[in-house]
Amino acid sequence: MSVEPGSVRPGGRTARVRAAVLDAAGDALAEHGFAQLDLADIARRADVGKTTVYRRWGTVTNLVADLLLDMAEQSVSRADTGTLLGDLTANAHLVQRTLTDPRQGPLFKAIIAAAISDPRTAQALRHFYETRINEWAPCVTLAIERGEVPEDTDPHEVIRAVSAPLYYRLLVTGEDLDEAAADRAAQAAATAARAGTYHRSHS
Amino acid sequence: MSVEPGSVRPGGRTARVRAAVLDAAGDALAEHGFAQLDLADIARRADVGKTTVYRRWGTVTNLVADLLLDMAEQSVSRADTGTLLGDLTANAHLVQRTLTDPRQGPLFKAIIAAAISDPRTAQALRHFYETRINEWAPCVTLAIERGEVPEDTDPHEVIRAVSAPLYYRLLVTGEDLDEAAADRAAQAAATAARAGTYHRSHS
Repeated sequence: MSVEPGSVRPGGRTARVRAAVLDAAGDALAEHGFAQLDLADIARRADVGKTTVYRRWGTVTNLVADLLLDMAEQSVSRADTGTLLGDLTANAHLVQRTLTDPRQGPLFKAIIAAAISDPRTAQALRHFYETRINEWAPCVTLAIERGEVPEDTDPHEVIRAVSAPLYYRLLVTGEDLDEAAADRAAQAAATAARAGTYHRSHS
Repeated sequence: MSVEPGSVRPGGRTARVRAAVLDAAGDALAEHGFAQLDLADIARRADVGKTTVYRRWGTVTNLVADLLLDMAEQSVSRADTGTLLGDLTANAHLVQRTLTDPRQGPLFKAIIAAAISDPRTAQALRHFYETRINEWAPCVTLAIERGEVPEDTDPHEVIRAVSAPLYYRLLVTGEDLDEAAADRAAQAAATAARAGTYHRSHS
């Protein structure tokens, strides 16, 4: 959090406090899970006054929702490789790297586990995935324009199909989440999309 | 739990107690989740002595592992419709009906959430899915024999591909888990399998 003298813009402190607190919340979630989250502990980790944290976020649920908002804002822009398979493979590798990252993997698991029993966290999580899916959906729209997939293909459904096997491994079967799994997820989604499986009318 | 007079076989009482306790554990999990599970409460629900429950299972983690074992033993036999798409569609409908069932849906969510933070539950959950996947894998082996899919197709990977989008909806994006989603999951897996996406060498 080093800031050059004179570089602090209006609102700079607020933004820095938010970044420090969200970082600390992410660390705490990755280390101990949602059930152990505690605003006072997060304030200590972030080296921010407890009162500031309570006033700004109030509850751990609000804080996690804000963390997901920040993660959505900072999520990686879509690829544009010129082919659907190329773009979906780039997306699959991004998901695979995120879910196997020593900090991000446990963080996602903790948030998803919390969302299973907490509707407010579930809503924030859905919003995060909507943002990510909206970001990557144009890869499919471009593939429609190039004639790679049928015109009535549902772009969101194709993007979700890439992620599904990777999250299924992470959350359910516990198998290795390697690059081969990512390649295969992208290939399966591209093949099914080309064959017309993801027609809008099916949803 | 009505038993005809004279029909009680050796071990009958033990089996009946297990069935009653596992039923009660499933109800409690579906209603309140893993964190609230309590052996004394489950004994009360099952109308079984607390000592019996403590002696036989000892911990809620052991009890949930035994519940998963029982669920695996009782899981539905595979279909044999004569085509890969037919068999995978039958499997997808079974998964979809299970995950949208008012008792089974919350039960699976509770167990999966628990498995995210508890390695012993994760192991029991993986064993459950291995049993289910082993049960359905011959649908793919038969498809290989019929020449529907390439010879080096990994049957387990195809069966997992059917479930993945349904669990992804349940756990992550929260979209409707309807029959159309099940049909599409089966169709995508069958199409990708026919195209050779699930080669053994890729895993």
